Amino acid sequence: MNVIEKGELCYTGKAKAMYATNDPDVLWVEYLDQATALNGKRKVAIAQKGLLNNRISSLLFQDLAAHGIPNHFISQTSDYVQLVRRVTMLPLEVVVRNAASGSFERKFGVAHLTRLTPPVLEFFYKSDQLDDPAINDSQIHALKLASPATLAEVRRQALQVNHRLSEIFAAMGIQLVDFKVEFGLTATGTVLLADEISPDSCRLVDQATHRSLDKDVFRQDLGELTPVYQEVLTRLATVEGSSTHVSG
Amino acid sequence: MNVIEKGELCYTGKAKAMYATNDPDVLWVEYLDQATALNGKRKVAIAQKGLLNNRISSLLFQDLAAHGIPNHFISQTSDYVQLVRRVTMLPLEVVVRNAASGSFERKFGVAHLTRLTPPVLEFFYKSDQLDDPAINDSQIHALKLASPATLAEVRRQALQVNHRLSEIFAAMGIQLVDFKVEFGLTATGTVLLADEISPDSCRLVDQATHRSLDKDVFRQDLGELTPVYQEVLTRLATVEGSSTHVSG
Ligand SMILES: Nc1ncnc2c1ncn2[C@@H]1O[C@H](COP(=O)(O)OP(=O)(O)O)[C@@H](O)[C@H]1O
Ligand SMILES: Nc1ncnc2c1ncn2[C@@H]1O[C@H](COP(=O)(O)OP(=O)(O)O)[C@@H](O)[C@H]1O
Ligand SMILES: [Mg+2]
Ligand SMILES: [Mg+2]
Repeated sequence: MNVIEKGELCYTGKAKAMYATNDPDVLWVEYLDQATALNGKRKVAIAQKGLLNNRISSLLFQDLAAHGIPNHFISQTSDYVQLVRRVTMLPLEVVVRNAASGSFERKFGVAHLTRLTPPVLEFFYKSDQLDDPAINDSQIHALKLASPATLAEVRRQALQVNHRLSEIFAAMGIQLVDFKVEFGLTATGTVLLADEISPDSCRLVDQATHRSLDKDVFRQDLGELTPVYQEVLTRLATVEGSSTHVSG
Repeated sequence: MNVIEKGELCYTGKAKAMYATNDPDVLWVEYLDQATALNGKRKVAIAQKGLLNNRISSLLFQDLAAHGIPNHFISQTSDYVQLVRRVTMLPLEVVVRNAASGSFERKFGVAHLTRLTPPVLEFFYKSDQLDDPAINDSQIHALKLASPATLAEVRRQALQVNHRLSEIFAAMGIQLVDFKVEFGLTATGTVLLADEISPDSCRLVDQATHRSLDKDVFRQDLGELTPVYQEVLTRLATVEGSSTHVSG
């Protein structure tokens, strides 16, 4: 691959800005120092958050690839930047739950952190306008958001991701309660794990203290976010045998 | 079967009162002259409604049985009463949609009456306290509401019901937009169609005038309900070659 140069801005989202590059198959992702809640209605600047999430996400994507779960990650090129393979995103948020929390707990009146075995899988239609409604397989097919075969593959990979992520976080003394991932399709139609995996998109609970180590700290105003994300990165870098600095 | 005698009241719901009988396998169902909306928060007395729904439901259950779809219906014994086989209800409302309307239309921003092919299947967790939340297969299994095998059979039967009901209503000049059914399990674990099928639980649109011929008339305050339900019964009795009176 030639040296990658940053191109035009494609999209600024709630957590990242996506740029084209001189390679049509490669996107330049800048992680932003900002946090949002309530589907973007609340937005706050948070120093270092982009750097921390970029590093955490990079380490997790690398680990997953090393464990047989291909994904869009190519390399981390600086504190805030990650290069990824461009895919056509499925407009779905895929949620895997190992224990009851958040909307699941509220919707079904189940006690907080009730163990869910097998893990629960949920889809949400990614649409800020519609407020990301929950969507089932039949509705996904009717709205032509994904074919049955694609959906089956998404489900398979999401459970694989859950299996490996749960192991990583357990080694860090953290319970992976639930997480959200997104998938895209390559030009040849292969389902590929994309977007990010970070404390923004995972619900993480310290096994010893039961303290939240994720964006719930922000959502529920439990204190400063940066030291919490730094704590996650420090533990992750230790189990991954990596420095917390950019490896290129 | 011996003569069935009415026993103790088991349950008064939003549309029917269910009584035990001298046969433990038989329930005595009285259809009520009342309509509710907003999950029971709005409740109004409506003359003749119970009689009309009892007759419509009886004719539809008889037709389905004659077309190879077994169900709980035993016989209609009077204007307001139907005997049914007692089952252990699954706490699920099963919705089949042939075209976009109601909550589907609102949730997914789809134009009114957009054709849905194949039909969309949805489950709702029947719980007045939780406001009947939508629920997917994975959540149903986690909450142990039904096994995967039971759910597959429910899905199969619901689509069969849709196929035959759509035919019946088409013959009546009516489009079956969507409907809700409920299923139960017999003592031996067989999935059996139960509850009711009536303009309370179906969304029906006159093919010629596009007029609502169902409970939307009540929900949306479009006029009197009784003449509308009477119209549905008159057309149904014609295609079923039945009188509109109790046949015993
Ligand atoms: N590999 C990829 N190719 C194309 N788009 C991607 C890829 N990975 C993530 N995206 C998309 O880029 C955007 C990332 O920015 P983000 O701030 O998370 O946006 P949002 O506010 O929509 O969640 C999302 O819309 C995400 O779906
Ligand atoms: N064959 C059956 N055996 C046992 N219960 C049944 C059967 N058919 C329907 N039911 C249940 O009886 C009640 C019918 O009354 P209804 O007024 O519709 O109640 P609801 O307000 O709960 O919908 C419902 O709870 C329904 O699930
Ligand atoms: Mg995002
Ligand atoms: Mg009912």
